[in-house]
Amino acid sequence: MIKKRALESETCSQELLDCKILVESENNFPTAAGLASSASGYACLVFALAQLYGLKDQEISDIARLGSGSACRSMYGGFVQWQKGIQLDGRDSIAVQIAPESHWQDLHVLILVVNDSKKKVASTSGMEKSVLTSELIKYRVEKCVPHRIHSMIQAIRDRDFNKFAEITMKDSNQFHAICLDTFPPCVYLNDISHTIINYIHEFNKNEGETKVAYTFDAGPNACLYLPEKYVKRVLAFINHVFPNDNQESSEYLRGQHVEMDEVSVIFILIYPIFMFFFF
Amino acid sequence: MIKKRALESETCSQELLDCKILVESENNFPTAAGLASSASGYACLVFALAQLYGLKDQEISDIARLGSGSACRSMYGGFVQWQKGIQLDGRDSIAVQIAPESHWQDLHVLILVVNDSKKKVASTSGMEKSVLTSELIKYRVEKCVPHRIHSMIQAIRDRDFNKFAEITMKDSNQFHAICLDTFPPCVYLNDISHTIINYIHEFNKNEGETKVAYTFDAGPNACLYLPEKYVKRVLAFINHVFPNDNQESSEYLRGQHVEMDEVSVIFILIYPIFMFFFF
Repeated sequence: MIKKRALESETCSQELLDCKILVESENNFPTAAGLASSASGYACLVFALAQLYGLKDQEISDIARLGSGSACRSMYGGFVQWQKGIQLDGRDSIAVQIAPESHWQDLHVLILVVNDSKKKVASTSGMEKSVLTSELIKYRVEKCVPHRIHSMIQAIRDRDFNKFAEITMKDSNQFHAICLDTFPPCVYLNDISHTIINYIHEFNKNEGETKVAYTFDAGPNACLYLPEKYVKRVLAFINHVFPNDNQESSEYLRGQHVEMDEVSVIFILIYPIFMFFFF
Repeated sequence: MIKKRALESETCSQELLDCKILVESENNFPTAAGLASSASGYACLVFALAQLYGLKDQEISDIARLGSGSACRSMYGGFVQWQKGIQLDGRDSIAVQIAPESHWQDLHVLILVVNDSKKKVASTSGMEKSVLTSELIKYRVEKCVPHRIHSMIQAIRDRDFNKFAEITMKDSNQFHAICLDTFPPCVYLNDISHTIINYIHEFNKNEGETKVAYTFDAGPNACLYLPEKYVKRVLAFINHVFPNDNQESSEYLRGQHVEMDEVSVIFILIYPIFMFFFF
């Protein structure tokens, strides 16, 4: 598809188009663990091919979407909305940037890797089964999601963390509720995921304000969103509730270095990409 | 309330009504573990008082309901529907017997006690929170439940195990989906519960027909429904997937004695009461 578009728009030579391509791919994200590894891989592949064939400013997120639905969102930095579109061939089901990465630099992400082994139910087949068998998904798609997307875009524009956090947590829970309403049910969260959810609610309650929000994609691993000023405190809290002997290891804690009140904890990655659930 | 009704209907002497009552209560069900222990206790208390005061054939399930909502269902044997009623004071929120215990004697129940410790979220407060914060519960109450109750009553009347099993499993999952859509979420199922759910689906699939259905009330413990002819086979299967050294103990396996292909397994109770989720 990228070759076809390059041919149509004459963005590169016929000689280049005739060349065969050798793809070597490597990904440092746990694969199929619900951390959007396939999205990052397909986005990278499509972006690299588009660069090669000179498709600089053209819309290519619809091509990325064919590899992995959420890959279309990963084509842009910052906050991105995946629009469902109305055309039957899906050509207008593309990603639109809501705000660039510079818009809300204060917003940080901690990823707590609960389990990096492959998930039992692939996201795409899980979603297909939900659409076929869940009764609640109809109400979610028609009533809940449009309202939430509208409120979420506003929260991002206003950098309103409280509102952002509430919608993020509620929508994560509702997505997993739909998975459970699927028949047979798809279950991505485990006991550790639920322990994290409980702890985050307890922590925010004790602090007297919402300092951190959780969200879970199609896997047990938590993505926590939080303003920069609370990173130290939240890391110290996580370290306290999930103590580990291995925390000095470079494998245990990854990503941007953070100065902490106490010893640092758990695989951390600063990853300012909006992962709001869409389907 | 029972004294008041006895007074109105003159079913006993004034002398008896003037006596003080000493209540001594004992319950052999695990308490607050999501196994309807409070329902059994309140139903017993109300029934015993009604007997004492001579209220033989009067409707008293509305009184039992005040102690524990589901206690109104436990006033009758067999299959019982808890009608929500329309009056504000709840006087018509009563239990109605759909079929007596003699109707479907072939239907057995195995209860797998995953955890008999007290649950973190009491059912009543959990339900109140769901009504206040879940968006999906509106759709469940208005669209899903009325249709399912209608189909379930028909399945019971027809002794249609396939239909009964499908509605039971789907409704259990949807009830827990609503709990997860509550904010903060209420989570009653744990990893073992989900393992049981997976195994039941796998078992039915491998057997080529639905031989057993699961349902979970507000706790992690599984109630399995199955026709009598499959009890041996299902017990052998459970024994295989959850092997245990302790199975010779009288504490491990309780209830009606079952002859089995292999050694017997897990706390078993023949408990032919309809536990369909209602809210």
